[in-house]
Amino acid sequence: MFNELHIPNESKILLIVLDGLGGLEKDGKTELETADTPNLDKLAAQSSLGLTTAVDIGITPGSGPAHLALFGYDPLENNIGRGVLAALGIGYELKRGDVAARGNFARIEEGVITDRRAGRIPTEENERLCRKLTDAIDEIEEVKIHIRTVKQHRFVVVFEGEGLSHELTESDPQIAGKSPLVIKALAEDAGKTARIVNRFVLQAQEVLEDEDRANTILLRGFASLPDLIPFPELYELNAAAIATYPMYKGLSKLVGMNVLETGSTWEDELQTLKNNLDNYNFFYLHFKETDAAGEDGDFDKKVKLIAEFDSAILPELMEMGFDVLVVTGDHSTPALLASHSWHPNPFLLHAPGTALTEGRPGFSERICARGVLGQLYSLEVMSLLLAHAKRLKKYGA
Amino acid sequence: MFNELHIPNESKILLIVLDGLGGLEKDGKTELETADTPNLDKLAAQSSLGLTTAVDIGITPGSGPAHLALFGYDPLENNIGRGVLAALGIGYELKRGDVAARGNFARIEEGVITDRRAGRIPTEENERLCRKLTDAIDEIEEVKIHIRTVKQHRFVVVFEGEGLSHELTESDPQIAGKSPLVIKALAEDAGKTARIVNRFVLQAQEVLEDEDRANTILLRGFASLPDLIPFPELYELNAAAIATYPMYKGLSKLVGMNVLETGSTWEDELQTLKNNLDNYNFFYLHFKETDAAGEDGDFDKKVKLIAEFDSAILPELMEMGFDVLVVTGDHSTPALLASHSWHPNPFLLHAPGTALTEGRPGFSERICARGVLGQLYSLEVMSLLLAHAKRLKKYGA
Repeated sequence: MFNELHIPNESKILLIVLDGLGGLEKDGKTELETADTPNLDKLAAQSSLGLTTAVDIGITPGSGPAHLALFGYDPLENNIGRGVLAALGIGYELKRGDVAARGNFARIEEGVITDRRAGRIPTEENERLCRKLTDAIDEIEEVKIHIRTVKQHRFVVVFEGEGLSHELTESDPQIAGKSPLVIKALAEDAGKTARIVNRFVLQAQEVLEDEDRANTILLRGFASLPDLIPFPELYELNAAAIATYPMYKGLSKLVGMNVLETGSTWEDELQTLKNNLDNYNFFYLHFKETDAAGEDGDFDKKVKLIAEFDSAILPELMEMGFDVLVVTGDHSTPALLASHSWHPNPFLLHAPGTALTEGRPGFSERICARGVLGQLYSLEVMSLLLAHAKRLKKYGA
Repeated sequence: MFNELHIPNESKILLIVLDGLGGLEKDGKTELETADTPNLDKLAAQSSLGLTTAVDIGITPGSGPAHLALFGYDPLENNIGRGVLAALGIGYELKRGDVAARGNFARIEEGVITDRRAGRIPTEENERLCRKLTDAIDEIEEVKIHIRTVKQHRFVVVFEGEGLSHELTESDPQIAGKSPLVIKALAEDAGKTARIVNRFVLQAQEVLEDEDRANTILLRGFASLPDLIPFPELYELNAAAIATYPMYKGLSKLVGMNVLETGSTWEDELQTLKNNLDNYNFFYLHFKETDAAGEDGDFDKKVKLIAEFDSAILPELMEMGFDVLVVTGDHSTPALLASHSWHPNPFLLHAPGTALTEGRPGFSERICARGVLGQLYSLEVMSLLLAHAKRLKKYGA
């Protein structure tokens, strides 16, 4: 619908994602409720609040689907395959048409897998094995093969060449005591890729046969880049992404945002935003650490980080004069669960002159649940932002 | 689903639409919050409240889509073309199969448009030109041609005859300095209509060639009546519409309601309702002025009108003993934006004995956001009304 409704104007939008922001209570208060956040609380009084669901009620999203939804791409229709996510996660720059897969180094004896993870070899050992494979195998049938370490027993392999398909079965039998599976084509035009991938597995096994623990490889999650309408085209926005982790940079690049070079601290990200303020009209600003603290089950650290955002970062962001400013999470990561969760995300929309305001201070999961925006899907966020930026004209007369 | 669940009974439903009711804050209060509304506030305590979205989150609806949604017709599937809306807006009674288009009187010199609006000629001048065209062109290939003034340079033309199609391109190049476009068929069966419409344009140009400012016409927005299941059939309701503006009468007629003759004031509309109370079991009662004040950016006038509705109209409506009474808007028209907006509509559902009540007085956008009905789509309103009127039986056992 957007294509017909766009109105270009001078407005600027800032989408701040505190990764894994939402939480659960310890001693009756969530991380957000426990943190001292005078600036967020005050801002909330002049903003609209709500809760957003990333994928669906009760569904815990990965970072890929959660971010895609927030950027306005249906995460169910555009599921990004594991191979692509793994490649994005290590900063590998996939090209359209590449086929990526997740790999495990594994132990095989007399044709049967005895350890699917090769004893969780150290990452340095993984790096040595990747170099050994790379030195021995460069390309097969004019398809270039790129092998990259992830961590411990895990690596990524990317096949680059003409006419490849990711419509393949996996070689990993998912259980020890079985033989690796021959990879098969799941589509008519995937026969060539299946043949090349099987040849790669055989060659890799030859290269590794003298290894002690990791004498074979298992492949799964074959995937290619999804075919998305680029963000700048979809919304007529000149969009920049500021993030420190490869995965989020990769996702931003995937949807067509410009990924800005930045340092590793929150202050670095803030400085990058300042330096580029005049060059874009949409900024996605990502802070990863809140999620990491949640994943570690470290309630106090997550509280401290939220308070730090409130005191050290938010005031400067507010001074930049954005027409629309959002503070939210991509998904919740309650420290009490030490993992991502299905709980909807606190969502704050500040848009002076176009947003109905709450009229009273306070920003938390419970306050957002009673906010004027009610409960919405992350997928609906982009149209709200465009509306509040007065970038959409009337539908019908 | 409705068709299988209807239960006829004696209940009566009143749907009151204060056009453009929802607003935004000036000095911390919206129009509805600023207005003195003791009766609405008291009624709200005995009602269920919520917010309704007409078309979609962030989408600002025109009056056509907003009303269609409220009447239970999907506004995205049943987009009413501009030509039809223009015809409804001047009270022209379109018949099924008619093709309507919006027209501009324009200035052409040596085959090139020099003014798409013919200097915004006065409406009286438009009326003279429409009479001139009507006198000269009655029909082409047995298709009758009806030409009606709208305002200034704008008119409506309706083609009435057998086998016509609205699947046509436009003649308006949308920019001065270009030649008018030849109208082309967009569907196989539209060839005849394209030929007739192009002949009409040529004949009109001949008729107008001696005119000073308006020596040609431009046509766009070809449209026919959509094929909707009539309201009385869809809901098994004997429905009447009371409205003063042609557009809303036209929309009501379009969905199959009986449009009652009424005067131009709110009191006239009230009297019309009283006079017809026994003849219908569903009334759509439309008050336009709140929207007009919002469109004019006149915050105080909108406040005054809401208070007037509360004191002069609502008490009498409440005495009529409707089983289900709704007070809502079709879309929001905040005076601060001086236009329609995407903000959801305050929605009050009074149904003694069947509606969960709020239990505390107050009716505003913010109170509705926290109401027991939560946030819903306008498209869901009709089933709520039928349910509260006990007109729907159980689905499944």
